[in-house]
Amino acid sequence: MLEKYILAAKRAQKADLVLKNATYVDVFTGKLRKGDIAIVGEKIVGTGEYEGIEEIDCTALTVLPSYIDGHVHIESSQLSPEEFASLVVPRGTTTVIADPHEITNVCGAAGCEYISKASGNVPLEVKLQLPSCVPATPFETSGAILNGKDIEDIVAKDYIFGLGEFMNYPGVINSDPDVIKKLEAAHAAGKIIDGHAPKVCGLNLNAYLCGGVSTDHECGEGGEIEEKLSKGLYVHIRHGSSARNLSNAKYITKENMRRFILCTDDRHAADLKEKGHIDDALRKLVANGLDPVTAVTCATLNCAECYGLKWRGAIAPFYLADLVAVDNLKNFNAKYVFKNGKLVAKDGKPLFETSKRYLPASVLNTVHLKDVTADDFVLTLKGKKAKAMTIFPDGVVTGCEIVEVESKDGDAQVAGTDLLKIAVVERHKMTGNIGKGLIKGYGFKGGAMGITIAHDSHNIILLGDDNESMARAANRLKEIGGGMVIVDKNSEKVYSLTLDIAGLMSSRDAESLQRDSRALIERAHAMGVKREYEAFMSLAFTSLAVIPKLKLLDTGLFDVESFSFTDINAE
Amino acid sequence: MLEKYILAAKRAQKADLVLKNATYVDVFTGKLRKGDIAIVGEKIVGTGEYEGIEEIDCTALTVLPSYIDGHVHIESSQLSPEEFASLVVPRGTTTVIADPHEITNVCGAAGCEYISKASGNVPLEVKLQLPSCVPATPFETSGAILNGKDIEDIVAKDYIFGLGEFMNYPGVINSDPDVIKKLEAAHAAGKIIDGHAPKVCGLNLNAYLCGGVSTDHECGEGGEIEEKLSKGLYVHIRHGSSARNLSNAKYITKENMRRFILCTDDRHAADLKEKGHIDDALRKLVANGLDPVTAVTCATLNCAECYGLKWRGAIAPFYLADLVAVDNLKNFNAKYVFKNGKLVAKDGKPLFETSKRYLPASVLNTVHLKDVTADDFVLTLKGKKAKAMTIFPDGVVTGCEIVEVESKDGDAQVAGTDLLKIAVVERHKMTGNIGKGLIKGYGFKGGAMGITIAHDSHNIILLGDDNESMARAANRLKEIGGGMVIVDKNSEKVYSLTLDIAGLMSSRDAESLQRDSRALIERAHAMGVKREYEAFMSLAFTSLAVIPKLKLLDTGLFDVESFSFTDINAE
Repeated sequence: MLEKYILAAKRAQKADLVLKNATYVDVFTGKLRKGDIAIVGEKIVGTGEYEGIEEIDCTALTVLPSYIDGHVHIESSQLSPEEFASLVVPRGTTTVIADPHEITNVCGAAGCEYISKASGNVPLEVKLQLPSCVPATPFETSGAILNGKDIEDIVAKDYIFGLGEFMNYPGVINSDPDVIKKLEAAHAAGKIIDGHAPKVCGLNLNAYLCGGVSTDHECGEGGEIEEKLSKGLYVHIRHGSSARNLSNAKYITKENMRRFILCTDDRHAADLKEKGHIDDALRKLVANGLDPVTAVTCATLNCAECYGLKWRGAIAPFYLADLVAVDNLKNFNAKYVFKNGKLVAKDGKPLFETSKRYLPASVLNTVHLKDVTADDFVLTLKGKKAKAMTIFPDGVVTGCEIVEVESKDGDAQVAGTDLLKIAVVERHKMTGNIGKGLIKGYGFKGGAMGITIAHDSHNIILLGDDNESMARAANRLKEIGGGMVIVDKNSEKVYSLTLDIAGLMSSRDAESLQRDSRALIERAHAMGVKREYEAFMSLAFTSLAVIPKLKLLDTGLFDVESFSFTDINAE
Repeated sequence: MLEKYILAAKRAQKADLVLKNATYVDVFTGKLRKGDIAIVGEKIVGTGEYEGIEEIDCTALTVLPSYIDGHVHIESSQLSPEEFASLVVPRGTTTVIADPHEITNVCGAAGCEYISKASGNVPLEVKLQLPSCVPATPFETSGAILNGKDIEDIVAKDYIFGLGEFMNYPGVINSDPDVIKKLEAAHAAGKIIDGHAPKVCGLNLNAYLCGGVSTDHECGEGGEIEEKLSKGLYVHIRHGSSARNLSNAKYITKENMRRFILCTDDRHAADLKEKGHIDDALRKLVANGLDPVTAVTCATLNCAECYGLKWRGAIAPFYLADLVAVDNLKNFNAKYVFKNGKLVAKDGKPLFETSKRYLPASVLNTVHLKDVTADDFVLTLKGKKAKAMTIFPDGVVTGCEIVEVESKDGDAQVAGTDLLKIAVVERHKMTGNIGKGLIKGYGFKGGAMGITIAHDSHNIILLGDDNESMARAANRLKEIGGGMVIVDKNSEKVYSLTLDIAGLMSSRDAESLQRDSRALIERAHAMGVKREYEAFMSLAFTSLAVIPKLKLLDTGLFDVESFSFTDINAE
């Protein structure tokens, strides 16, 4: 193949494809340049003046290296990798560093393999980070456990690019032997380790870094960024659906610029469809005053360097022809997207087939529980005072409030109050575990709602004011193999949306999924869920026992601050 | 080991070594910072406040990541790798990207192995680039040939870091099949390829880059630099003994800075000893106005990034404790040098043993020729006009002049004229080849002189005004196994210096070698060699058939511009 590149580069043969008269970004010198971009096979072979077998006029366009998302959980889109690609590739993203942490909590390594193979059919290059912290805590029941030995066995495999965000930073700082084993396995395999270290600083940061992590996408403002950069971390600027820190771009200087990269982390389908992906981050960064070429460099060359992706992230001979032609460096509207030298999207539409999905049995039918009954949701309190969870809007943090609750026949009575019952029903291993608690101020009334997305172990989270409805909700989720459900006690109707892939994602197309999802969300609001919440997704974090304060696991109520179980009774 | 790093990082244990109260360079943000630097084993574990089992006060010092020489031929020092290390490590260099092109031309892959193993005994990390172009041209007789198949067999080996400077840029541009095979073998092995592309630009540069080369250390001024940077090459700023382009630093901007790296290429022992190594480049760059932190970044992080040397080139937790403590960022006088966390040099003196040398039989006794006689140097011309070589001072370029020569008994008569005979005697394969020519204006009179350093095939170069003396010189070089020789016809004395390692380098210590070398050079000048020449080393390039114009090979007189042999007779 080299010979073919060389012949075309010196114009002894026509190139396969030439982008004519382009303005293009030179990320090496920070300049805009003009010329033709010649492509042979998957590579750029030259810039200058060229003729191609095929030519695309780019006179009015600016050509950029296409974008690399430095850290993303594809599952957060609730879409299959194929359908995810159909949304992000037309926006200009052709490479993602993906951490399939969610599906791996449900399906184990089979979840990783699925993401890898499913994305093999679309022109989105998915570099797969093996989830490092499955489950998130040892206190709950997840679908899979990846201990040090498991990581050792898997991380060296060819389809694994690196080790995913090491969320268990206390485990690193306390040099937990199993944690050390995971880190050492990744180093022995020569794989990069992503970090996750919110507010970790000083000696603790030094200790965490001694685990050998390379990045952080949880970096707070100011001093935290400065310290993390100076200690060698690449800092991700994040543009997720809820967690966003584009404002951190104000700390970019010419001297530290090369250490900033962009990512989306968790971004749901509606945002991907309506607002965009990395292109949306670029648009907003530039609107906020960041130099456009700097912004593009963060989304391309910097990320390629961070992750050791050679010959990627720039427009130069021998670089991969992963390119996006945009209208301008303000709007970043993608006219053409090229992956490995092939035109794969035009005018925001994918030019590739996504309707044929890879759907192995290993990620389907993942909801395993015995049928539950109304009695399973009886909540017996010792007295009238109990701890209730509160949910902070726009976030994943919960609070704990002491509330007064009446009981009748040994069961807490919440109907007609500002309280609801909340339950986490184990759905992986038929343990029969049901964690139970109270939640205040969510607003829902007259039945139950539930979801099989429940960070990070993804059991079933239910809430409701009627035991019978809660049981029906759980049983329906079992029946459909995962998803979201609402049970209306008054009409006796059950409304549901299936997320057939691990109970997390749908094998359907983004558009119809969005439509149905929107309808179900609206129904939840109609049944009282306050508009300040995201109906279902705000629930999904009530079981995430690594973020304060009061959380509910299948094994019981958990106080994150003391990192131990806590009694619901408050007297 | 991770656990030990982590414990010390969070101060639960004392560090092995702490550099107290240092000012240190943070290459990630371009700032100077203050604090202790804690080291455990070979790693930095933290910056901040630390106590160590051993502590070194650095209050008055500035600590830098130690230097990486991005491209060097160790052979040019005429020293063994051990002795080379004893000169450069105390200057602050602890990693070199070494291309053993010279010794490989003599000894083949055994030469590479020798450099690798010999440097294993000293605290200088030698990343070995497999020479890509052995021999430099197909027209001459070298000690070894590495064709595409050979490169394929060797380049994937663990001790080989990459493929050395691809000097045969016409071969790449013309997609010579054997050249393509070499490049593809390096790519298949995932190894970096160094470039060498003087004045190559435009379409030819695109074609050359399509071979997949990453660097260039032959970059000319201005537009050439700008084009090469924009096309993705890392540009080496070179500080060799003769080839120097520190002035290229004026093209460094904040935007392109990360693509500049430093190297020495060819630097002889006297310069290393008297002026220094990368430290000397830094001193001069800063004196010329380059920002010191930028200069240090080019010599450290940039080079580490270019060559994919992870966890090297910066002062941060988990980075290799390769450090140099200097007096200030103006003089760069190294007070302490640390390699892998160990103090290896102090006050300019090595703290390691170099007297025990690794000397395998494969690199010794490399001068193989039948005894020659005076008759071998008879030079028969057809008429009175002949082509004579001229040597430009301070360079490696030669000229061609038509001169008048008297002959007697069928032998050109040069004694008493401004001409000398020059001969290249094949010394690898007993072919008996002797190339003969004339050289004008060198000044030597009354005998012969010779050397076994003869770029790049390293045959014997002789010159003289007496056939008998020339024969004696060649035979003495054979006798001593290579080196430099002077035969004084009048006194009948023979003076020589042995370069026992491949006829290129000495196994002796730098100091005594320098003293004896200096004496022999002075003797050459005393016998008439003009002071504008470097006595022996100016001869060493008269056989380098890739640099204009008239050169002499063991196979005959060669015109580099027409890239073919040429007749000595000019009428």
